[in-house]
Formats: sequence, C-alpha cells, structure tokens
Amino acid sequence: MKKFLLAFSLLMLVLCQNVALANNAKIIDRVNNPADVKKLSIEQLDLLAKDVREGILNRANLTGGPLSAELGMVEATIALHYVFDSPIDKFVFDTSHQIYTHKMLTGRKKGFSDPLHSNIGITSNQHESKHDFFILGHTSTSLSLAGGMAKARDLKGEKYNIVAIIGDGSLSGGEALEGLSTGATLNSNFIIVVNDNNIAIAPVNGGLYAGLTDLRLTNGKSDKNIFKIMGYDYYYLENGNNIADLIKIFKQVKDTPKPTVVHIHTIKGKGYEPAEKDPEKYHVVAPHTLDNNGASKPKPETYMSVTADYLLAKKKKDNRIIAITPATPDVFAFTPELRKQMGKNYMDVDIAEQNALGYIAGLATNGAKPILGVKGSYIQRGYDQIAEDIAINNAPATILVFVEGISNWDAAHCGTFDIPLISNIPNIVYLAPTSKEEYLAMLDWSVEQNKYPVAIRVPYRPTVSTGKKDTTDYSKLNKYKLTHKGEKIAIIGAGSFYRLALETKEEIKKQLGFDATVINPVYLTGIDEDLLNKLKANHNIVITLEDGCLDGGFGEKIARFYGNSDMKVLNYGAKKEFTHYVPLQESLQKYHLTKEQITEDVNQLIK
Amino acid sequence: MKKFLLAFSLLMLVLCQNVALANNAKIIDRVNNPADVKKLSIEQLDLLAKDVREGILNRANLTGGPLSAELGMVEATIALHYVFDSPIDKFVFDTSHQIYTHKMLTGRKKGFSDPLHSNIGITSNQHESKHDFFILGHTSTSLSLAGGMAKARDLKGEKYNIVAIIGDGSLSGGEALEGLSTGATLNSNFIIVVNDNNIAIAPVNGGLYAGLTDLRLTNGKSDKNIFKIMGYDYYYLENGNNIADLIKIFKQVKDTPKPTVVHIHTIKGKGYEPAEKDPEKYHVVAPHTLDNNGASKPKPETYMSVTADYLLAKKKKDNRIIAITPATPDVFAFTPELRKQMGKNYMDVDIAEQNALGYIAGLATNGAKPILGVKGSYIQRGYDQIAEDIAINNAPATILVFVEGISNWDAAHCGTFDIPLISNIPNIVYLAPTSKEEYLAMLDWSVEQNKYPVAIRVPYRPTVSTGKKDTTDYSKLNKYKLTHKGEKIAIIGAGSFYRLALETKEEIKKQLGFDATVINPVYLTGIDEDLLNKLKANHNIVITLEDGCLDGGFGEKIARFYGNSDMKVLNYGAKKEFTHYVPLQESLQKYHLTKEQITEDVNQLIK
Repeated sequence: MKKFLLAFSLLMLVLCQNVALANNAKIIDRVNNPADVKKLSIEQLDLLAKDVREGILNRANLTGGPLSAELGMVEATIALHYVFDSPIDKFVFDTSHQIYTHKMLTGRKKGFSDPLHSNIGITSNQHESKHDFFILGHTSTSLSLAGGMAKARDLKGEKYNIVAIIGDGSLSGGEALEGLSTGATLNSNFIIVVNDNNIAIAPVNGGLYAGLTDLRLTNGKSDKNIFKIMGYDYYYLENGNNIADLIKIFKQVKDTPKPTVVHIHTIKGKGYEPAEKDPEKYHVVAPHTLDNNGASKPKPETYMSVTADYLLAKKKKDNRIIAITPATPDVFAFTPELRKQMGKNYMDVDIAEQNALGYIAGLATNGAKPILGVKGSYIQRGYDQIAEDIAINNAPATILVFVEGISNWDAAHCGTFDIPLISNIPNIVYLAPTSKEEYLAMLDWSVEQNKYPVAIRVPYRPTVSTGKKDTTDYSKLNKYKLTHKGEKIAIIGAGSFYRLALETKEEIKKQLGFDATVINPVYLTGIDEDLLNKLKANHNIVITLEDGCLDGGFGEKIARFYGNSDMKVLNYGAKKEFTHYVPLQESLQKYHLTKEQITEDVNQLIK
Repeated sequence: MKKFLLAFSLLMLVLCQNVALANNAKIIDRVNNPADVKKLSIEQLDLLAKDVREGILNRANLTGGPLSAELGMVEATIALHYVFDSPIDKFVFDTSHQIYTHKMLTGRKKGFSDPLHSNIGITSNQHESKHDFFILGHTSTSLSLAGGMAKARDLKGEKYNIVAIIGDGSLSGGEALEGLSTGATLNSNFIIVVNDNNIAIAPVNGGLYAGLTDLRLTNGKSDKNIFKIMGYDYYYLENGNNIADLIKIFKQVKDTPKPTVVHIHTIKGKGYEPAEKDPEKYHVVAPHTLDNNGASKPKPETYMSVTADYLLAKKKKDNRIIAITPATPDVFAFTPELRKQMGKNYMDVDIAEQNALGYIAGLATNGAKPILGVKGSYIQRGYDQIAEDIAINNAPATILVFVEGISNWDAAHCGTFDIPLISNIPNIVYLAPTSKEEYLAMLDWSVEQNKYPVAIRVPYRPTVSTGKKDTTDYSKLNKYKLTHKGEKIAIIGAGSFYRLALETKEEIKKQLGFDATVINPVYLTGIDEDLLNKLKANHNIVITLEDGCLDGGFGEKIARFYGNSDMKVLNYGAKKEFTHYVPLQESLQKYHLTKEQITEDVNQLIK
C-alpha cells in the first residue's frame, strides 16, 4: 500500500509538472542558461530546485539511469551557477552521477522534460554544450583534468575559476588521489567541491572514507583532514542541500588564489523518499522503476545472478573463496542481504580497480581463491596491475569481466576494447563462454586450478542455456571446440557471437549450398594450431566473429596464423572507434555483423 | 682532485673487501640466511651493515643499477630480519630500489660479491628465493599485494606478520594510495614500513609529500597524519639508519593485531658521500660510474638529449609549451640545471602516471601544449586515462613513450607491449620514427597541431641520423613512406626495425635475386589502404617487422587487411611472453628477427 502511494504521488508529480509546463508557470521555464539563474531570488532558487528535482525524477522514470546522487546535488549545482560565471569559470563534474542539474541549467532541460525525444546523454559532453569540456564516463578523473586546465590558464596568464566537483565515492580512485596530491602544488585558483554523500554505489569502506566521516562528524573541525595535510585551504558545509548556505560558502572561495577544498555534506536521494531511505537501490534505476514501484515483475536469470548462486554455494564448501568488487556489488547481483550471507568471504574495495587487481594477486599468492567482478570498461583501469601484479607472477586469480560488447551505450563505456586489452598480455587465459553451462564450468575450473591467471568474458545479459552440464577440461589450453564439421568454409564464433556463427552457417547453407564448419574457440588468448592446420585440408575460407574491436582482437590472430597459407580469412567485429549512443542494429549493420551480410561477403569472395 | 680521492677510496674499499673475503673475516660471510642475522650482537649488526653497503657499492660499480635508495635501507632491512621471521613472516618490498640488503641476507649475496657471474636480478623474485613472493618492477604495488596476502592469511586462520616496505617516492602512485585506504580496513596484522628518504628519483612535489614532510619535521607528532586519518596505528623513527632504534620499533609492532604504519626517515645515499650529496645523480648509475668518477667520457647524443634541446628552444618561442614527467625527468635528459631553465614550463607530478595523463588532457583542452615523457612500460599504468581522458575527447596532447623494445631487461620492464596497448585505442595517432630527423619533425608537428592526440614511440637509445631535414606533412594520417620501389616482396619495417627492413632487402637481393620493396609505415595506428592495395599488382609477399609483441600489434593489422586476398603475409616481432634478462641476440634469433632467417623463411615460402 505504501509503495502504491509512493508510485501514485510520483505520477501525480509528473502530471502536475506537465500541467505546469502547459501553464508556463514554472521557474525552470525561465532558465535557459546560467545567467537566468543569477536573476532569481533565494526563494525562487528553492522553487527552481523543486522543478529540477521533478525533471530528474521524470527522466529516471522514463529512460532509467542514475538517480540518487543526482537528487543530492540539485541545490549545490544551482548555487555554483549562481555564484560562478560558467563557461568563463570552468566546471568539471566528475562522473559521480551528479551532472543532471548542471545540464538542466545550461540549455539542456529538454533531456528532462522530454527525455525520450532528446539526445541529451547521461554524462558531461562538450558537444552538447559550451559549459562542458569533456565526455566523462569513468569516475575519479576530474581532479587531474581540472588541474591541467588550471595550469593551462596560468601559463596563458588568464584569470578565472576552475572548479572540480567530485563525490559519491569517486575520491578513492587512484587518479583522483594522485590528482589531489598534484593539485595542491598549484600556486593559484583551483577549487575542489567534494560532494560527500556518505556512500558510493554501495556503502564505502576504506580508510580514506573513515577520514571523511571524521570530518563530517566534527562539522569539518577534525584535525584528521587529508585536504589540509596536502596543503589545501578547507571549508566545510554540513547542510549541502541549503541553497543560501551554499551560495555563501561558494562566494567565500570564488577567486581564491589558492588550491581550496569545499567539503559539502549532501543527502543522496534527497527529495524522493524511497531513494533517501535506500540510496543504493535507486543509485541507477531501470525505466519505470518509479511508477511501477509496487509491481513485481519476474526477473530473468542473468549471468550476474548465476554468479551469485555459485559464489554463495561455493563459499560454504571452501572458506578460501573470496569475492571482490570495486564498488560494484551488482555484478554479483549481491543485494545487502546476500552480502551479509557472504560474510567475510566478500569484500568491496570502493572505487579502486588497481588495488582490487593487486589485492587478488596477493590473495592468490598466499593461498586464497579470489574472484574479482569488474563491470565493463572499468577493467581498463587496471591494465598495469593485470600485467605486473597478476600475469608476470602467474597468480591464479579469477577475473570476471562483465561486458556488453557492441552496444548502444556511451563512448566512455564502450564494451569493445577488453579483448585487445586482456588477450595480448602474456600468461593470462581469457575465456569466452557461449552459455550459462560453459560459464559455470569455466568459473569452477578457474577457481579450483592454481596454475594460471584466468579472466572470463561474461555477458552483461540474461543467460543463454544449453540445458546440458558442461564437462570440458579447460586445462587443455587453447583447445577449440569443433561443434559442427562441414567443409569449404569454417566459422569461428567467439563467446556471445557463437550464436551468430550458427545462424550464419544456416544462411550459407540456404543461400550458397555449402555446409560450413562451426567452431567455438573458447580461448581468446591463443590459437589452436592443430585444428587450424587441419582445416587447411578441406576449407578455403575461415570467418571469425567477435563481439569487440577488430584491431588487436581475436580475429587478427587467426589472420596472422594463416598469413603464409592459401586460406582466406574474413574477420568480423567492431571498428576501432568510440560509439556514443549508436543504436545496436545500426552498428551491427555497419560492421557487417548479420548473417545475410556475411553470406553475401562470402558469395562475393568465391565468385 | 676531490673526485679522484673519492674514486680512489672506493677502489681501496673494493680491494679491502676482496682481501677480507679471502681472509673470511667479514660478518657477511657468516650470514647465509635470516637466522644467521638473529645470532649477531648490535655491534656485529653494525659491521654487517658496513659489509652490505660494500656489496651494494661493488655491484653498482660493476653492473650499474640502482644505488642511492639501496644505501639508505641497509640498516632497516637488517633490523627487519633481526626482528621478524622470514619467510613465515612475509616481507613485500615495493619496487623502490631498496631490496638489495634483503637479497644479501637471504642467500643471494653472490649477486653482490660477484655480480658479473651471478644471475641475481635487481627486483624481488620468488624464483630466486622463498623469501620473495613476487617479481616486482613497477612501483606502488606493495600495499595491495601485501594487503591481499594478509586477507588470505586471515581467511585461512593463520597467524604471522605481513610487512610491506614502501618508499622512495612510491607512495604517490594511485595503486599505493588505493591500497593504503583498503589496507586500513583489515582487522588484523598488517604492517607498512614507509621508507621516507625525502626524495623520489627527483625531488617530490605533491601535496602528499608535503604531509610526509610535516610529519618528519615534527618527529612524527604533527596532526597532519594521513596514516592516522585512515585508521592506522602510527610510529615514527627519525634516525632510520640506526639499527638499535630500528630493532626497538619493529619489536614494538611485531604481532600487532592492527594495521600499523612505521614511518622511518632514512638517508638516501647513506654511507657513500657523493650519493648522499647528490642522490638523484646516483639514483641509478651506469657501470663504472663510481671508479671512473673523475673521467669525463663523451656522451653519445640520445633521443632524450635531442628532446631536451627541442623543449628548451621551443618554450622560448611559445609559453604554452609544458613538459611533464611522472618522476622521470631523465627521459627529457633534464638535469636540475635544465629543469631550472624550463621554469614553469616544466613540471614533475611525482610517480603518478594516471594523473599525468589526465593532466595533459586538461592542459590541451584549455589551450596549452603539453608534452608528456613516459619511460618504457610505465605507460601501462595509464591505459584508462589515454582512452577516456585523452582519446574520447581528442585532446591534442603529445605523449612521448621512450621504449627499448625487445631487450635484455627484466620481465617487469618488457618494452614489447606498448604497440598493442596504444595502437588499438581509437583516435590516438601513434608514430614510429626511424631517425632523429623524423622524430623531431613528428614532435613539432604534434605540438603545433590541435586535432589529434599523438603518441610517439621514441627509442630509448642513441640517435640514428639521416643528416637530412624531414619535411613530411604528418597530418596526412596513415600515409606510409615507400622508400624503395621493388617487386614481388614488400618489407614494411616499423620504427627501430626500419633498418632491419633495409638490411633484409639487401640479403634477399643477394640470396634470392629479388629487388624487394621497402616501406616505412610511420603510423602504427592505421593502414595505408591505397598503398597496400597497389602492392597487390606486382607483389606476392608482404613482410612486417616490428620491435614489439606480435599479438595485438602492427603486423596483424596488415595480415587482416590482406585476409581476403592472395597476398601472403609474414609477421615478424616478439612472441607474447615476458622475457627476464634474456640476452637480446637470443630473443632476436628465437623470433627469427635476423635478415638471414627472414630471407630463409621467404625462400621456403616461394619454393
């Protein structure tokens, strides 16, 4: 009943908003750029905050996306625009899911009143507005970026404010901590607003946040002040959702000639009660989470949820199991309840991917069985740790890389670069399961063996099932699975594109009359020389399909292998490019990743 | 005269050592493992320190390598072995050039008495000794590795000490700061020894070190204590070169049930006066730097020194130029004097590669002209920043990657992975110069243009000169240089292997009678489709040569391009493997990277 009421209130809120829009009675309607914000009274700014919050809820409900942190930063962002003069003064909002208000105040409110018919993205984007300077998507980068901008300003002899806004757990990332240290050396204006909402995606754990907590509990007065230690001037504001107070403190620091931190305490989920009560649940929401709040839809089984089942069962049998995430318990579908069940066999290391990878090297070396879950492109943050801490030492750790592959996501989260990144590092075994059963067999093999560092490319999707238990011995490295023996043409379909290989085989049969061979390569890190050599006997064409970037990827290894032979090789995969919200089908067409296009290419080649 | 006296003293010292060895009168002769250290009196430990120091100087003089930081950690390492019980208690020495004493006390002293005839390496190595657990080569990793080991110990219910030893500027690296934060959350024994020698390779700059300085100046009493903030117990020792004091403090913390920091102040270069006076100069030395101290040999011109000349001249003309290093001013051949000349147009950001890369994105975006110099494999530490901060935003920054390529270096510093790493990231232009003149033309083009992020693969070597100014327009992306027009066989030699291409052309001519085409591809990030298509008219074989890993590298792109054609492609480069002190010629032979082997391969193929 309570949930129903909440949902009802929200709907009313959205409806009222629409009515209000029709009447042109809202403050937000008068705000088309930051100059309009400066004309408003404090009372009007408070009303503006209400309008902005409605826009955020409207968008979250219709398109899904970040919510809790966005709601917390409404007042602070209004105050920033009231006090500073963007874009002469320059804001760099860290990817802490806190930029929506800034977007609404800088000419992009259509992304919130009419989000389904706008192409305003989630992240900062200089192509959307002159008030942004970067496309950002990975956290913890703002202090380095803004620090560099401040240094450039000084070199050119210019005068204005550079303001980095960071928070929501992003401060623990290595680049942020490095940037904090270097930023302190600027002998000029450099303002960091720390949005402290006492939580990242999940609650934060590390010693760094213990320090922030101490500052918060003492109203900023504690001596345990990492910012002052480094040489920053420091200001604290307890009520980071009070516009008048925020304006006052920002006015104090505006035009400061010194590196300065303004630490504000905001309420994650502010103004939307369910999110205030459970900010993690509403950190990022699916479309219609808000108005369907009471409805319980059956959730499809995902690779994340079967991982949770596996880990919970496994740790009961073996206390050396330890599951680790860098602020992303959702890759293991770990709700707070499941985290509790995992007990000391689970830990979250905050946003700190490098440390997570070094940590599992240490765990594996000293006899534990670590399983790290990393979401999508964040694995990029630990290349050096995979190579140095793990691969050189052959630490038998398991890394689960949950990737979407080619997708309609934003440039910063492109899921097409993990194969070039991981598969060209020596010693690592990178596996691409084609079904739930294969995945679970690979996972258990990896956890039980102690010879190799293993990474598994797990689809960030609902499971695909064969219904048959997989009994493959994965210790026979680089042994591909020949699943259909044909002739003339062999199709090697890696991981999530194995099904496309099967479909293409059928299409080739139908259109060209050949019975093509189909191969599941299993291993993205090596070549099955024996099998590939045997193919030469009765095949002329080998086709590779991979759900990732062709450059540096899997298919090129096959092309190189056959370079000195008569075998023709056609590699299919993504182009080396960042795609930004490009519809999936559009990309697949462009890359010729449909069974019809591949069949036509083969037809052209054999003509 | 003074220098001569120093050199003479050192020679005497080495001679005396040899006499002493002959007499078996030295304490070090009695020490074959840590148990032997525990039997000694404090007076004997002091003598042991003297012996160890002689060994370090002997090795540095004969083989070259790290010196200053090693000298500072002699007493602390002796005290660690006196108090703790390695390998039950486990030491993880960060790559802070401070492990030599540990090696000498754990059965590896031959690496110091007879370094030319031992294969004891510079770094930690579990294959050398059960007292080591990792091959380490990149700094800032020890806290994560040791933290993971401590957690594994706790999961298994075991009891012993885990001690990470970090210092010499390594604490500013992102992984170390992340690891420091997570390490604080262990509810058990975890001891961090911070070796604070007030300097990294060059003097440290960041706010983090300002904090450490404050602690040092107050004898550890300052409230500005980053370790206490995070929740660590904290101990300070001013005289970190006094064995008795060190033993006392280590005894205090042994078996502590809490994360604990022991901050010791050591003298970099301790016991060798020139190094104490100029620790940067003696941070890493060339062989016979010590006994030839007075002699002045003419230094060959290197790609580093011509970079220095370029930067110094350029900044006089354009104040927006800014040269940046992450604790490695030596890649620009920047002595303290040249750094002073660069003034505010040079900055070192300490060991903090991620921040350095984010910083140049910010600098370039705000109109400065940043040139970052990174040494060898350290570029790996910033994959995510190259991709996200720089490439997605097309920030027109210049990254100079000084790499050795295939070398006899250690596994951790393999110079063969930068091409797979950088060249598969979209938008980046990765250039491979084949001469000094090409390099300077590329560098100046990169600095003056504002459309692309550019990386240049600079040989970590003496220059090669054509004697002719290069006037190529590098804005015509992916336009290869056809330098010799032949037929049947085309050899594409990238960067430092261009000369091998020329030699191979001659060898093929001599042995097989063909006049092969030679191509300098210039661009490692793209394909000259036009030229490659034209080759099909009168060539059957394309050979690619690259001074790096084949997997994910340049040659595979060529193999993929020709996959659907009749062109045969032979890719030459390094195998995907970590080599550890393998002689260069041995690797080149193994990889068939000699003109004779390539010619023979061609001969086999055309037979």
